[in-house]
Order: sequence, then structure tokens, then C-alpha cells
Amino acid sequence: MKISFEELKAQFKKVLLKLDFSEEKAERCATIFAENSRDGVYSHGLNRFPAFVKLIKEGQINIEAEPEKVGQQGMVEQWDGNLAPGMYTAQVATKRAIALAKENGMGLVAVKNTNHWMRGGTYGWQAAEAGCIAICATNSIANMPPFGGTEARLGNNPIVIAVPRQEGHLVLDMAISQFSYGKLQEYELKGEELPVTGGYDEDGNLTKDPAKIRVSERPLPIGFWKGSGLSLMLDVLVASLSGGRTVAEITADTVEAGVSQFFICINAQNLDQSISNRIIEFAKSSDSMEEGGSIRYPGESSLATRRKNEEEGIPVNEEIWQQVLAL
Amino acid sequence: MKISFEELKAQFKKVLLKLDFSEEKAERCATIFAENSRDGVYSHGLNRFPAFVKLIKEGQINIEAEPEKVGQQGMVEQWDGNLAPGMYTAQVATKRAIALAKENGMGLVAVKNTNHWMRGGTYGWQAAEAGCIAICATNSIANMPPFGGTEARLGNNPIVIAVPRQEGHLVLDMAISQFSYGKLQEYELKGEELPVTGGYDEDGNLTKDPAKIRVSERPLPIGFWKGSGLSLMLDVLVASLSGGRTVAEITADTVEAGVSQFFICINAQNLDQSISNRIIEFAKSSDSMEEGGSIRYPGESSLATRRKNEEEGIPVNEEIWQQVLAL
Repeated sequence: MKISFEELKAQFKKVLLKLDFSEEKAERCATIFAENSRDGVYSHGLNRFPAFVKLIKEGQINIEAEPEKVGQQGMVEQWDGNLAPGMYTAQVATKRAIALAKENGMGLVAVKNTNHWMRGGTYGWQAAEAGCIAICATNSIANMPPFGGTEARLGNNPIVIAVPRQEGHLVLDMAISQFSYGKLQEYELKGEELPVTGGYDEDGNLTKDPAKIRVSERPLPIGFWKGSGLSLMLDVLVASLSGGRTVAEITADTVEAGVSQFFICINAQNLDQSISNRIIEFAKSSDSMEEGGSIRYPGESSLATRRKNEEEGIPVNEEIWQQVLAL
Repeated sequence: MKISFEELKAQFKKVLLKLDFSEEKAERCATIFAENSRDGVYSHGLNRFPAFVKLIKEGQINIEAEPEKVGQQGMVEQWDGNLAPGMYTAQVATKRAIALAKENGMGLVAVKNTNHWMRGGTYGWQAAEAGCIAICATNSIANMPPFGGTEARLGNNPIVIAVPRQEGHLVLDMAISQFSYGKLQEYELKGEELPVTGGYDEDGNLTKDPAKIRVSERPLPIGFWKGSGLSLMLDVLVASLSGGRTVAEITADTVEAGVSQFFICINAQNLDQSISNRIIEFAKSSDSMEEGGSIRYPGESSLATRRKNEEEGIPVNEEIWQQVLAL
């Protein structure tokens, strides 16, 4: 079943207004959820919306709160998210980092006590649309063991890097785990093996079996020791810069709320975009691993899906759509 | 054979002065090479010094050149390295980024036409010693296929993230390849398998055999498609921000010279260092994979090696040491 972007957004907004969201907040949050589905990130669009509503009803997300600036040193600002909807606050923070970048070349907004930003790429696209480079990161609940360990002590701590480009922005949106738990479950439900090793089984052997990794709770960070170090550093950066909570403290609370994030923007208005084009062209000039295969730049698939879905409608899981219609 | 830091540094300096380095440049470059060996990064200390001297004699590195500022927008500066010694220019750029950060909260220095910075961690330690967070990156010659491709089109493009901490700075110094060619050769010479898959053989099968990967020239980026995207984005960032050369252009020249880099510093003087301590403590609280194994934070091993080598002397490859004594 396919529906239009407008229909999806209107339904999200209707539900949020019913939950007493302000007009502006409902508009912004509904737009972000609908855009995530439109760009093919269904897991953080429609499919996540019921869980978002549940968190609001449980009081984990404060719909009346506004993020506020609580500290500043030059172009570096600290904000408190006050547990407002995470995607709303992330958009406000990105907007502020863009403004700092337009004025001073670059700016950084670090946010504590915020909530899940859903799809990190959203803020990369936002910055790129405004002519800015973005580097953003968030921490999360612990869901990976550090290299050499067996117990979850690291978040998958997604990082986003975006660079504006007329022919289609470059947007890397990447969690530090090789596969998310959601992705593991998808493969398990399809009865498929992972394409590459994704973690350890309970005996400590590397495996492509998604079920075994879900049981052992030992998914791999990208690049083993390298991703393990990178995930730890991202936690240090987001928590130190914002004065906010670490993966340890989020995990102790058992609910993934009150996370820490940062948003760096750099004005790219005067940069030479032909440089990105040459890099993409060079990458694509490699022979393919598989007959008819292609090499894609970060953001290329999202843009292709966006165009397809805008033309043909956004594919929705009918059961979840009915659920959202009933909210 | 072990020698002292002072002896190592003095010999490097003597050679550089004989090559007509200025007193200051010889002092700085000799110190960096000696520190790299002292911290256990022998591949970019003594062991790399003869190759550095060769590049100078061949005229690839201009010992008289000074890096100079060629552009600026607010806290973001563009510099031209003028092909001066890479580790000298990287240190100058980091110093400038630190100064910008002290004054404005943060600063960015992007450098074009520079040379190999040797060990990226050097500039992370430099920033951390000055009380700054650092995020730095460089591009390189193409040495990895992009995900889905079979020909080298990406650099290993190392990234450095450093955060100051009284008990020992956190310094992640990470190339985007799972193993460097140097590391593959080390394993091959020892007749050992890699600890994890490091690339494809010529038939396109994943392998732990270092020799097969050196033949196929298909080493893996960390996390397959993820590291592939990250490496491409780092090239876009360093080249776009500096207006410098891309991996494509460096590769076309067949010699790894005239690379592009950026150095971001953020003033960390007012940040709460107990946050890093809590993150490290939490990571280390995991059970170990192996009996007696340990979980380390990025920078921990370097610091331990530094202390050991300062006390016991720096282990040197006698053949290379004799070679350097004869220069």
C-alpha cells in the first residue's frame, strides 16, 4: 500500500495535535517523521511513530518543553533539551549551528537532556540545504560490548557527516554498530544470514546468524577495535561538550531518554563543489564486484528513494498505518 | 637494542641540519619523529625516517617552504602547505587551530599542498596538552576499493579525535582501512594470519591471508560499506575545506605528496573531565573476552608504551638505526 507524503504528514500532525502538541511543534515533528519514510528510512518514520506516541503518553518526552541555551564560549554553545521531542530539539540545534556558521564560518551546539533524534540524516540534510557542512553525533543506550569485552558498554552512537552539493547532497548517516538490533531482527524474520559477520555467538565465535547475536547481545562495532574506540570517543565528545549524560548513565535508567548530542556546522557557501564531484566520479570509476553492480556515494540511495516515493507514493506497512489512523 | 629519546632526537636533528633544515624546523621534525618512536609508533618514527630523508633528497618535500594562510572566513582558515615537511606544517596548523579555539571556543584550519603528517596522533596529543579537543583528518593515495568495487579508489584517510584528561588524554588515531599495507606485510613476514578478515583474495573471497590481500590490492575498509562511505566523506571534507587535492589527484601523481588535511580544535578548559572518567570506567567494567584480557581506552597503550620507553629506552631496529647513523 502506498500513500502520499501529504497524507502521511497530515495524519501524524493530527495525532500530535490530539496529544496537545503546539501547532508549530506538531508541524515540525510530523514533517520529520513523514520525510524519514519518504526517504526510505521507514524504521524511523511511520514504523517508529507508534513507539514515539507511547513515550509521550508515558511522560518520557515532555511535549511542552523548549530547548534553551545554558552556556556559551564563543562559537560553542551548550543547550538543555529539557526532554522535549528529540527531533524537534535536534532541528532547533542544527538551525542555531547553521546561524553561527553563517556568521562566523562555523559553530557548534551541544545539547544535553534531549531525546532520540530518530534519523540522524535529517539534520545533515537540513544543514546541507542551508549550504553548510555538518558533523553531528548522538549517544544512545549501551548496545555493544567494547573490543575485548562481552557485555554491552558502548552505544551505537550514530554520526552524521553532510556536505552540500547541487547534484545531490552527500550525507553519511552511520551508527557505529555493523548492524542495528532492528536490522538483525529483519534478517532473522526473513530467515536470512547476515551478508557479513555481525557479532559473536554465546561461545565467542564470530557469526552471521542474526538470532545468535540477538541472544548473545554481542553485536560488532564496525572494524572491531577501531569502531569500539570511535564509539567511546563519540560518547566522550557528546557528553563532555554538552555536560550531559553518558552511555553509562542512560543505560542505568534502562530507558533511552535524556541523551547527549552535538551539531557542528561549517559554512560551505564559498567551497568548490567540483571537488566533491571529482571524488564521486573517481569512486564510481572502479570496476564492480558484481556484474551490473554499482558504487554509490553516501546519500545517493536516499535521494533516489525520495524521488521514487514522491512520484509513486510512500510504501507503508498497512498494519502500522491502520494503527496510526486509530491513534 | 634500546636508546634514549635524547639520543634518537639528536641524531635525527643532526641529519636534518646536514640536509640544510633551519634550526627550528630540524628541532621540531626531529622531536616529532623521536616522539613517535617513544610512543611505540615505530612505523612512523625511526623506521620511517630514511624514507623521509629520501623524499627530501628527491625534492618531493620542500624544506625551505613555510605554510601560509591563504583564506579565511571567521574561525575557518585555509592554509597552503607549500609542500613543506608535513609534520612541521601539521604542527603549525594545530597550533593555529588551538589559538582560534582559545579565543573563540573553536577553530578550523584546513591545509592544502601539504605532506604526510606521519603519525596523526601527534596533533591530537598536541591539542590535548594545550587543553583542547581535536578532530583532524588527512587524505592519502588510493589504497582501498570502495564498497562494491574492486579497484583502489579510496584513501585510508586517517582521522584523529583527542580529548584532554588529566589522568591521560584520550587520543583515537585511526586509519579507515582495517589493516594498513604495512601491517599486512608485518603479518606476512611473521607467517601469521590476520586476527580478523582484512580483505578479499583475487577471486573475491574474504580472507585473513595478508599475502593474498597484498596481491589482490583489495584491503577492507572498517565496517565494509560504512568505512567506505566514511573514507569518501573524509576526502570530501579535507579537499573541499582546503581547496586542495583529492585522493584521485594524489593517486594520479603516483607519489603520496600534496595531500589535504583539516584540524578542528575546541577549547575544553571548562569541560567536566569526570565525564570521560565515568565513560572509561563503564567500558572497563565489562567482563573480558579472554581470561586476563583488558579493555583499553584510545590512547591508553600509547601512554603506557611512552612511560616504559622513557624509563627503559626506546627499542630500535638495529639495521635501521645504523642506516640513520650513516646518513
